[in-house]
Amino acid sequence: MSIKNVRLDLSYEGTRYHGWQRQKGGPTIQGVVEEKLQTMVHEPVTVIASGRTDAGVHALRQVCNFTTTAKIPPEGLKKGLNSLLPKDIRVREVRDMPLDFHARYHAKSKTYEYRILNRKEPDLFQRRIVWHVRPSLDIKEIKKCLALVEGTHDFSSFCSSGGAHTTPVRRIIRAELYGPQDSLISLVFEADGFLRHMVRNIVGTLVAVGLGKIDSIGFQKIFESRDRTAAGMKAPAQGLFLTDVGY
Amino acid sequence: MSIKNVRLDLSYEGTRYHGWQRQKGGPTIQGVVEEKLQTMVHEPVTVIASGRTDAGVHALRQVCNFTTTAKIPPEGLKKGLNSLLPKDIRVREVRDMPLDFHARYHAKSKTYEYRILNRKEPDLFQRRIVWHVRPSLDIKEIKKCLALVEGTHDFSSFCSSGGAHTTPVRRIIRAELYGPQDSLISLVFEADGFLRHMVRNIVGTLVAVGLGKIDSIGFQKIFESRDRTAAGMKAPAQGLFLTDVGY
Repeated sequence: MSIKNVRLDLSYEGTRYHGWQRQKGGPTIQGVVEEKLQTMVHEPVTVIASGRTDAGVHALRQVCNFTTTAKIPPEGLKKGLNSLLPKDIRVREVRDMPLDFHARYHAKSKTYEYRILNRKEPDLFQRRIVWHVRPSLDIKEIKKCLALVEGTHDFSSFCSSGGAHTTPVRRIIRAELYGPQDSLISLVFEADGFLRHMVRNIVGTLVAVGLGKIDSIGFQKIFESRDRTAAGMKAPAQGLFLTDVGY
Repeated sequence: MSIKNVRLDLSYEGTRYHGWQRQKGGPTIQGVVEEKLQTMVHEPVTVIASGRTDAGVHALRQVCNFTTTAKIPPEGLKKGLNSLLPKDIRVREVRDMPLDFHARYHAKSKTYEYRILNRKEPDLFQRRIVWHVRPSLDIKEIKKCLALVEGTHDFSSFCSSGGAHTTPVRRIIRAELYGPQDSLISLVFEADGFLRHMVRNIVGTLVAVGLGKIDSIGFQKIFESRDRTAAGMKAPAQGLFLTDVGY
């Protein structure tokens, strides 16, 4: 009996789910994917993701893996799974991998995107996938702060309590702002890893900067304070997308 | 006791609703709006729309009116109603109008937009608001057909049975294709009025043209046949938006 290790690239809309991780008390992405996989492979399956996403957070590409003794070829698995999964979870790609591939341990970088709709009127067709911020944001001042977060830093100020991290130091490879295009501002962060709620805490503080509540010097002070209580509000979950994982 | 006539401009995502018109057996836009309005004005209200939209069809701007003896100013009505309405129905504008204004009788033109996502992979974040068509569409051939439908014509070929129309003749003021942009093709139709399912029947036939199943000459033959059974498939509801009403 041979075992194979399968890589599964998913996208999902997190609106309906209590995050990635299987738990009692509400549907989760992991729970649903494992359930549908098990009806295909007829054996218990544990799906490992590159990392958890919180309730309401989306993924354009979440990378996972699982091992199985089933002999279903990748294309068959993709089609079968997509026909079983609800429409808010889609399989993008399935690949057979060497047995030692591990979606979490081997992840070298992750990219998150945060979408802000910055105009007076909300857009009901985007309500599940943007943070609607009414007052016009100061893009220039936000960009100054983005330059500050790039590089290797202690991100304690932007880590929510409850994260079980061995070190608060992370390397942000890329922190960029795109737009506004059709009133949409996109903030993209690529890093070797992220602390708990790190992107949402940074974005919440960047929006405080964009609203003129603090300036980039104030932002730097918060950043350097390494004090979890110093940062601005946490941006809501629905604007956040995991967009890619690097290996 | 004075009566006022209020114009209400709405946008809504039709996904959850059995169309505009109040009915038993499922929630409708009209039903929900009237219910919430009544809790504000404390009297029975009938909301008249520029026209019905079918189940699953959306509106960027649907224009309505209702009469009431309540003395709530327009801004208060907008805020109050938006706080009571579910998130998939929004009030865009409220205006006091002369007593003779009638949202349906006085509508001079209506504009519909139909959105097609034309690429291999679906986009789960747009699944409620586009028709996903996999094979690459022949834009040039579709544009030839759009030129044919502009003007005053008998649209019997594109009218679904069950429409209670006195005449099948309508004037299409504008029939345009925008895009593809980010794989999105937008078809815009402005007319003095539309027959039942007219936009969806035209779009379904245009997609048959874009797929090479028929060419623009075949399209013209269908158009001239005035035969309801000659046209291609009806495009699905979720790609259709009522975008504006002219008075």
